[in-house]
Amino acid sequence: MRKTVFFILLLASISLDSVRAQNKDSIMIRKIFDEALSNGECYQNLAYLCSNVGGRLSGSPQAEKAVNWGKSVMEGLNLNKVTLQPVMVPHWERGDKEQAFIINSQTKVRYETQICALGGSIATPPEGIEAEVIEVHSFEELDKLGTAKIKGKIVFYNRPMDPTEIFTFKAYGKAVDQRWAGAMKAGRYGALATITRSMGLKIDKFPHAGSMSYVDSIPKIPAVAISTEGAETLSTLLRVDKSARVYLKTNCKTYEDAPSFNVIGEIKGQDNPNQYIVVGGHLDSWDLGTGAHDDGAGCVQSMEVLRIFRAIGYQPKHSIRVVLFMNEENGLRGGKEYAKQAKENKEAHIAALESDAGGYSPRGFSFTAPEWFMAAVQSYKPLLLPYGLYDFEGKGGGADISPLIEQGVPVMELIPDSQRYFDIHHTADDTFDKVNKRELELGAASLAALIYLIDNTIFH
Amino acid sequence: MRKTVFFILLLASISLDSVRAQNKDSIMIRKIFDEALSNGECYQNLAYLCSNVGGRLSGSPQAEKAVNWGKSVMEGLNLNKVTLQPVMVPHWERGDKEQAFIINSQTKVRYETQICALGGSIATPPEGIEAEVIEVHSFEELDKLGTAKIKGKIVFYNRPMDPTEIFTFKAYGKAVDQRWAGAMKAGRYGALATITRSMGLKIDKFPHAGSMSYVDSIPKIPAVAISTEGAETLSTLLRVDKSARVYLKTNCKTYEDAPSFNVIGEIKGQDNPNQYIVVGGHLDSWDLGTGAHDDGAGCVQSMEVLRIFRAIGYQPKHSIRVVLFMNEENGLRGGKEYAKQAKENKEAHIAALESDAGGYSPRGFSFTAPEWFMAAVQSYKPLLLPYGLYDFEGKGGGADISPLIEQGVPVMELIPDSQRYFDIHHTADDTFDKVNKRELELGAASLAALIYLIDNTIFH
Repeated sequence: MRKTVFFILLLASISLDSVRAQNKDSIMIRKIFDEALSNGECYQNLAYLCSNVGGRLSGSPQAEKAVNWGKSVMEGLNLNKVTLQPVMVPHWERGDKEQAFIINSQTKVRYETQICALGGSIATPPEGIEAEVIEVHSFEELDKLGTAKIKGKIVFYNRPMDPTEIFTFKAYGKAVDQRWAGAMKAGRYGALATITRSMGLKIDKFPHAGSMSYVDSIPKIPAVAISTEGAETLSTLLRVDKSARVYLKTNCKTYEDAPSFNVIGEIKGQDNPNQYIVVGGHLDSWDLGTGAHDDGAGCVQSMEVLRIFRAIGYQPKHSIRVVLFMNEENGLRGGKEYAKQAKENKEAHIAALESDAGGYSPRGFSFTAPEWFMAAVQSYKPLLLPYGLYDFEGKGGGADISPLIEQGVPVMELIPDSQRYFDIHHTADDTFDKVNKRELELGAASLAALIYLIDNTIFH
Repeated sequence: MRKTVFFILLLASISLDSVRAQNKDSIMIRKIFDEALSNGECYQNLAYLCSNVGGRLSGSPQAEKAVNWGKSVMEGLNLNKVTLQPVMVPHWERGDKEQAFIINSQTKVRYETQICALGGSIATPPEGIEAEVIEVHSFEELDKLGTAKIKGKIVFYNRPMDPTEIFTFKAYGKAVDQRWAGAMKAGRYGALATITRSMGLKIDKFPHAGSMSYVDSIPKIPAVAISTEGAETLSTLLRVDKSARVYLKTNCKTYEDAPSFNVIGEIKGQDNPNQYIVVGGHLDSWDLGTGAHDDGAGCVQSMEVLRIFRAIGYQPKHSIRVVLFMNEENGLRGGKEYAKQAKENKEAHIAALESDAGGYSPRGFSFTAPEWFMAAVQSYKPLLLPYGLYDFEGKGGGADISPLIEQGVPVMELIPDSQRYFDIHHTADDTFDKVNKRELELGAASLAALIYLIDNTIFH
């Protein structure tokens, strides 16, 4: 950002002006929440997306359908502009449902177990892979075992998410290396495939999808996730049967990159039309469920912000853009393209917000923002506390808007209650019936309230 | 309370001692949460209660079974004492499932609709009641209509819970007069029966049970709740068909008071064995569901507090009692009896805590306590914030422990996120599958943490 002037309306020494401003702001925030909770449309929009579009992985026909849906919803919001921003995206398909068996080496009994290929993985050969399994809990353990113990086997990463982390995303962060880098690490030692314990805190039958990565210098091997229940079963068997085997068959394939779009809607700013506040979620989702919490919720909440502003007659000072980003899940191409275009077009971005942590009851926002911006955020606290928003301490911002950070844009993410998110994250169970209407609406209103405050206190 | 001495360990001017105390406390609170989230037993206990006992209205065989269950769980916790405290309770039974039809006066078409008798109501005559319906939204409106317009009709109370209240219990408080006093008010004007819109924010088919009351001076008339969806249907019909009728048939009956028990478990205090901190929930529930959130959750969380203390080897200074109160739902006899006995036995109570707002993700505690106690609570804040506990401003305390207030006992209640509670409150949908394991465990740990802090800072 160039020269930055900002105003904290609530100074420690309270002046009459600041009291007036706070009253005005608290009335406007009350209006925002009343509108969201009384006339909200985000819940119905999400119902439509989940039931009529469903899971929508980048490059799929459903993703294309989702783009058209997003555009048509926005066209109904009386905005100043709705556009599609072209972007090429990875195109990976799961193919037929995977098969897996845990095999007792003594009795030869085969137990069917629930797995799914990880996004970006190569498939097993058509006849599948059957081999002995070696369980590890860290890459250090893997390195110690080395080629001698690993070659020709299936590596089973079974370090659970830490249940003692209160904020479950921290537990996710501490475990997800196994999913993302597991195949790279094990491929180096001649493993035939990897099985990673699903990134979930609940013991159940749902395998959790998610992205993984290869490097060209290391042999590529198939990578799958096993349900937490399957992981417990396999681990228990391995304790008594060191030669237990697993059979895996996956049918996934990576295709040529496909054309797709970010969907962008805009209300023109009254005072600073060339300065932007962006709010968004990602339109793509994993294919197993219907992407209700991840991230249909963030998409409908972001559009709801503009609907609320129109409904209560709020004319923003800066231009407010909602962006439904394409391809957060396996490439971040939409987020990168948006940032690239913003830079090329020399668009000044005041702030960028994302909702991509589920449509649960909101507790606050995380930030990656300079000190002067956080000082303004401190002044918002008393206005947001009545709505259950108390937590502004976390570092974060949302993946899709993270490419804006290097342009100096303050980024922030809605932080909903995180307890239930990893029960359904990337699974077939991430469906509309898991979403509570009021919780979703409160999230939309929280985004709108923060944007309103930024719009009124932060200027280039 | 007699002479009260209390210590705030965290003074504004930080001394080395206070830093040491805070470190010790923060380590102990971390241990409490780790134990609850890693080795918690409350979720399994709740599964058992819901599946093997089920709904357990006072005076029912299931309530008796629940008493035995509570006793046997506590006997497994290595406590110093487990006792049953006798109490006589009301005994009302629903009888066969109710029937209701909305009848179009023009076409005579009868639409079946979902109702339930309110607790304590008399039944309709065996042949049912059919009459015209008059919709009202307040007692003022009812009073204006008077006998002329009401006599011989069914009064339909249809003021919804206010969706703009962020804390849903406030919306409940603003609407529940219709359920509690509706029959009394309408009986005075010669109404034949009352139908009250269910106390829920969601539009669905579940009627919500709950208690109601009569006075002897006013004719007693049958009172039912209609599902929110039914209320919408009926109200819509009444707009075009002023003579629309409803048929109601209920089969409930009040029996003689029945013997029952509060279940009490105790860990003896090391320094002040004759001073008590009480934590509890209520063992009885409405009969339609299995009382999972209301209040199986509070019962298993309260017992979990003592299990946690034993598991981490914490020896409390005061005696800690868990009380599973009988008959919160339709009489509060258990809470009253406990307070009566406490007074008669001159038991000094340092504090009383309740969990009766659902097993959802905790956000804080509400209090009815003197200023000196609240000053201590202020000092706990930084220790509890890392666990998502930030809200200590509400006035409250829990129904079962409210009779202790007149003895000067500070009372407090766990405040979980309230968004989903009234979706299932008093309905057939209040079942175990609606409870999230981690949310339930966090509530138990929150109770244990607050009790630990009180135990270490408040003395008679």
